[in-house]
Amino acid sequence: MVRIDGRQENELRLVSLDREIMKHAEGSCMIWLGDTQVLCTASVEDRVPPFMKGSGSGWVTAEYSMLPRATTTRQQREVQKGSPSGRTMEIQRLIGRALRSVVETRSLGERTITVDCDVIQADGGTRTASITGAYVALYDALRWMQERNMLRGAMPTFDAIAAVSVGIVDGRPMLDLAYEEDSRAAVDMNVVMTGSGKLVEIQGTAEGLPFSREQMNDLVDLAERGIRQLLDEQKKVLGIK
Amino acid sequence: MVRIDGRQENELRLVSLDREIMKHAEGSCMIWLGDTQVLCTASVEDRVPPFMKGSGSGWVTAEYSMLPRATTTRQQREVQKGSPSGRTMEIQRLIGRALRSVVETRSLGERTITVDCDVIQADGGTRTASITGAYVALYDALRWMQERNMLRGAMPTFDAIAAVSVGIVDGRPMLDLAYEEDSRAAVDMNVVMTGSGKLVEIQGTAEGLPFSREQMNDLVDLAERGIRQLLDEQKKVLGIK
Amino acid sequence: MVRIDGRQENELRLVSLDREIMKHAEGSCMIWLGDTQVLCTASVEDRVPPFMKGSGSGWVTAEYSMLPRATTTRQQREVQKGSPSGRTMEIQRLIGRALRSVVETRSLGERTITVDCDVIQADGGTRTASITGAYVALYDALRWMQERNMLRGAMPTFDAIAAVSVGIVDGRPMLDLAYEEDSRAAVDMNVVMTGSGKLVEIQGTAEGLPFSREQMNDLVDLAERGIRQLLDEQKKVLGIK
Amino acid sequence: MVRIDGRQENELRLVSLDREIMKHAEGSCMIWLGDTQVLCTASVEDRVPPFMKGSGSGWVTAEYSMLPRATTTRQQREVQKGSPSGRTMEIQRLIGRALRSVVETRSLGERTITVDCDVIQADGGTRTASITGAYVALYDALRWMQERNMLRGAMPTFDAIAAVSVGIVDGRPMLDLAYEEDSRAAVDMNVVMTGSGKLVEIQGTAEGLPFSREQMNDLVDLAERGIRQLLDEQKKVLGIK
Amino acid sequence: MVRIDGRQENELRLVSLDREIMKHAEGSCMIWLGDTQVLCTASVEDRVPPFMKGSGSGWVTAEYSMLPRATTTRQQREVQKGSPSGRTMEIQRLIGRALRSVVETRSLGERTITVDCDVIQADGGTRTASITGAYVALYDALRWMQERNMLRGAMPTFDAIAAVSVGIVDGRPMLDLAYEEDSRAAVDMNVVMTGSGKLVEIQGTAEGLPFSREQMNDLVDLAERGIRQLLDEQKKVLGIK
Amino acid sequence: MVRIDGRQENELRLVSLDREIMKHAEGSCMIWLGDTQVLCTASVEDRVPPFMKGSGSGWVTAEYSMLPRATTTRQQREVQKGSPSGRTMEIQRLIGRALRSVVETRSLGERTITVDCDVIQADGGTRTASITGAYVALYDALRWMQERNMLRGAMPTFDAIAAVSVGIVDGRPMLDLAYEEDSRAAVDMNVVMTGSGKLVEIQGTAEGLPFSREQMNDLVDLAERGIRQLLDEQKKVLGIK
Repeated sequence: MVRIDGRQENELRLVSLDREIMKHAEGSCMIWLGDTQVLCTASVEDRVPPFMKGSGSGWVTAEYSMLPRATTTRQQREVQKGSPSGRTMEIQRLIGRALRSVVETRSLGERTITVDCDVIQADGGTRTASITGAYVALYDALRWMQERNMLRGAMPTFDAIAAVSVGIVDGRPMLDLAYEEDSRAAVDMNVVMTGSGKLVEIQGTAEGLPFSREQMNDLVDLAERGIRQLLDEQKKVLGIK
Repeated sequence: MVRIDGRQENELRLVSLDREIMKHAEGSCMIWLGDTQVLCTASVEDRVPPFMKGSGSGWVTAEYSMLPRATTTRQQREVQKGSPSGRTMEIQRLIGRALRSVVETRSLGERTITVDCDVIQADGGTRTASITGAYVALYDALRWMQERNMLRGAMPTFDAIAAVSVGIVDGRPMLDLAYEEDSRAAVDMNVVMTGSGKLVEIQGTAEGLPFSREQMNDLVDLAERGIRQLLDEQKKVLGIK
Repeated sequence: MVRIDGRQENELRLVSLDREIMKHAEGSCMIWLGDTQVLCTASVEDRVPPFMKGSGSGWVTAEYSMLPRATTTRQQREVQKGSPSGRTMEIQRLIGRALRSVVETRSLGERTITVDCDVIQADGGTRTASITGAYVALYDALRWMQERNMLRGAMPTFDAIAAVSVGIVDGRPMLDLAYEEDSRAAVDMNVVMTGSGKLVEIQGTAEGLPFSREQMNDLVDLAERGIRQLLDEQKKVLGIK
Repeated sequence: MVRIDGRQENELRLVSLDREIMKHAEGSCMIWLGDTQVLCTASVEDRVPPFMKGSGSGWVTAEYSMLPRATTTRQQREVQKGSPSGRTMEIQRLIGRALRSVVETRSLGERTITVDCDVIQADGGTRTASITGAYVALYDALRWMQERNMLRGAMPTFDAIAAVSVGIVDGRPMLDLAYEEDSRAAVDMNVVMTGSGKLVEIQGTAEGLPFSREQMNDLVDLAERGIRQLLDEQKKVLGIK
Repeated sequence: MVRIDGRQENELRLVSLDREIMKHAEGSCMIWLGDTQVLCTASVEDRVPPFMKGSGSGWVTAEYSMLPRATTTRQQREVQKGSPSGRTMEIQRLIGRALRSVVETRSLGERTITVDCDVIQADGGTRTASITGAYVALYDALRWMQERNMLRGAMPTFDAIAAVSVGIVDGRPMLDLAYEEDSRAAVDMNVVMTGSGKLVEIQGTAEGLPFSREQMNDLVDLAERGIRQLLDEQKKVLGIK
Repeated sequence: MVRIDGRQENELRLVSLDREIMKHAEGSCMIWLGDTQVLCTASVEDRVPPFMKGSGSGWVTAEYSMLPRATTTRQQREVQKGSPSGRTMEIQRLIGRALRSVVETRSLGERTITVDCDVIQADGGTRTASITGAYVALYDALRWMQERNMLRGAMPTFDAIAAVSVGIVDGRPMLDLAYEEDSRAAVDMNVVMTGSGKLVEIQGTAEGLPFSREQMNDLVDLAERGIRQLLDEQKKVLGIK
């Protein structure tokens, strides 16, 4: 079965990762995944959240937002409603956890790296694209710190990390759903995985019909395949062998 | 290996479900799971959210909150901060999705059933206990509607639903984590399943170390075992064969 | 004249005070007054509000809230509106003042005791029931401190304290109004009194018709009678002679 | 015993009521009570709150605020904190209830009269001065409506209304406390009374020591005396016999 | 052409500046400009904003607000909306900048002078009247500091400052627009000028038709003329030669 | 005198306007002015603000925001503070007024065009660049409407509009200040002008020293020169002769 944009069921959309595109940020990456476009910037600051003060250790966190016309119809800015939506908070907590799972924060000293993921254009999979792009921005910010001798020891990354969405559309498991597919998926799953193939996060939700253990396993298989490609792209653009 | 409270690794804590305990609510259930205690009330209202108006269909939603001293140390009320936390929103969205997955909302007419899950005492697993108790309160509210001929057709429940937490503690998969276990778990997973054994939601997070596909499968096995017991308890208390 | 629930005009509803019902709180009391049910928990914390810092003295304060389905119809949670309502703030200030009037806060050291009064079910008189139950929870928290040598000197309670509502319904003064009575009362009065029979607070409001000095005195007489019974219940449950 | 400003214990401060001082408002009154100065304006609007819609009846309400430098030291504006304080809400609810107790709101048609009480300068007794001044502004707004045939029938005032504060200072009951006296009062009481001498509201609070029934009665006696004088001033300035 | 109130096109409305009218404030001035009436109070406080801490220097700032019935129809208080409107913030930033342009803040020590401009009655030109009145209140607060030896050196005012509105109404440039004129002006301009005739702020906005360079110059000429008169009034009332 | 980036005092930075760069928006333009980069999107919606309902006329409005790392150091998102800052509101009101001054809103029917100006990177002059880019996005949205016969009559633009900042730096008037220049400017001025050379807005502020009428005129001359160039760029990119 061929998909709306001609892809195979196990095929990613066109990926592009552009590094070092911002004048001010310590690390930055624009990720394109088909028509989904997210700007990720990593900022190094000499402060830690209150619960880390005096620990000698640093912190890595993320924020996520969408420009009002990233979507098909314009959406009101969250500042107009007074606080981030539940969806926004869910997503930025997810990105933050994913990044922290591969960084040794004790090496940072009492500093915070905030990775801002701002969706310029949305066509499905913005949260997983954010994680994949955020890792590149974060890696560059860590290199920036290393060049300035701000790190204790070597690069404090245990592993690489990337993420992808999968889902069951028209009864069939598919990789990397575009918005149109996502909106009629019966099951929607986000998978976050390390370079060594271990799971960091798996979130599967039956939007329509409950799913079996077997379907769950098929979806994770597809995700693994997609994530390996994204990890390769990251390596290439970061110049890591 | 025996757990801190003497349980086996695949053993649930003591469960108790008390129905019809509130004077005003159309359905209610107090669930105890060890020392975790959640009051679930289901309220039927003649209104639907704006996006459902004119659809002829109804809505099922949930809200979640903790009393300030449900926890070991007192926590500030969310109203003092001006808006629900990201955690609260994440949880109440999860409960709402789970309940909607087993109810035919078209049968309700333009009415909303809100299930409030208020944690009286917390000792781990409050979100999954909320789902298990909420189903009982919701079921009773549906019966209340049925007795008043407010439903189109028969009881609009596709299936029952229950949930449990599992996790990897000290390197071993365990069922139904108490707070003390949860706080040192390397992996934390919440599983929501229907009476027919299908998955509605699976959320696994590596708080410490990433996990393998094999570990993932062990955790889902444990969860299935626990959920079956909870589904039996629901049936018993609701008088369903 | 007999009342809707068969009571005499000078008769309290059935009272019950249950102590030590929470796992975590330093003091706790569930008070039932007819169908009105309030959970009071007292939490001891090593901090004082900014205006007390460096004073060497402690603080006693209260918070009040209703579960959304404590009432006949479901009420929106205050967190959804962004701040506590005027009614909530009025009530929690009242409870706090009442408790402080019988505690020597200098004996606490720089600590705060917060008594949370959460209305589980409402049927009139929730603010006065909160005061009566809060005193029991507070007393137990003070005992808890005494056992740990956290108090300067003996138990820092000048006196006991309890409260009741009275009102003029159908032209006649009545004790302890249930919700149905309260909603058609011409005058509504809350009285807070100490164990030695002194007034700490009196708040009388003509919801319908203004009232005479004579009526005011009749109402305070009734309140005194009810409060004496509540003070006896407190003594009994706390094991004070 | 002579008071700090030379007054007798049963003596009011100098009162002045100035009417018709605003260009735009339908009714207005500046009340001075010693150094306490409150601007009261009454605004007639063609709307009612949601809960009154379709009732055919009108509404009278009040708002209260202090200019930031009404007080000895500057206070932050409430808009900076995002919501009115508990104290402000308590006071404006009190003023509104007092005014509604003497106005037949059914005569107004579906209109709202909002009386704004803005404290220009504060020296104790601002809430009771607000009530006394608000009645004058409200009365003029009602006359303005009457001249335009906007009322059903005659002037819809059952009675006049005024208020005063009393308290126990240095062990002695005193009338109309100035700020300096108020801040060291053991008991503080606000009394709202109609022209025919009936009580609309009585709020007595032991800030320091609990008080006896006898002291309560002495305070209400003093308040009655002061309110009679204020009612006379209102009549004089409104040209009512 | 004669204006609605009989003024010439280059004529100010009647001005009145009353000093020292508040009991508590260190400086105060009630300014009347026709029916526009603004109460300006200057408060000296021993604190500076966070960004000034440790600088040894002081700060001058302003806040602006309107009483709800300052205007033709009642306006909701900003505290009800939760935050100051864009218009309010724009105006108070303008007043603050204007005042800081003529005060040497280093002479104040680490102190803040807050000038509150509360519009009692509005009939056009409230922001410029606020600046003119605020300077008088500020000057008196500086004198108050000087008398207490709180200033480093002499009076820290570089120059006086005043402001006026001008506009193009019915095709003709006019000075000091009243509300009725302002609401149909094609161009609206606010000019802030020092005693020595230099510009501190110029804000010209085409509400209707764009304007030419020539018209811009005519408007600034008119403004200069008006401001000179206001500067003379300030001098007279402050007793400065 | 040569400027930090080698420009002449009357020279603009490099300008670039890219149209039709967004998949969803009805009009879009990325403007670069040196290192300042603003994404402008125009969204057409079938609604008008409450005050326009039933008028048969449309509305044009603007929103402005900065990505957190558009600036040298990361800035907190405004949603975290709960409401837009005064600066943001000032700027978006300015952009909206400027756009409305050249569009006949009656031709739009009851529709709103919202132009979102999101600063991707900031290096001075973001508000004026926003206006210049917003006009291009707006023009394309109007064309989009014209192609769909949504406009009453011809293109409803009276004129083009563009804006630039000027200022006095080191005592000399300069065109188009970069951030480094802006931060040490004595006078800062924003000028908005139409294609026919008329002024729509002029805002000049003495951040340091007050300025003379002569300096004011020199600044407006410089601005005119810069704006003519920007108007030419707009024409070129929009394909207008």
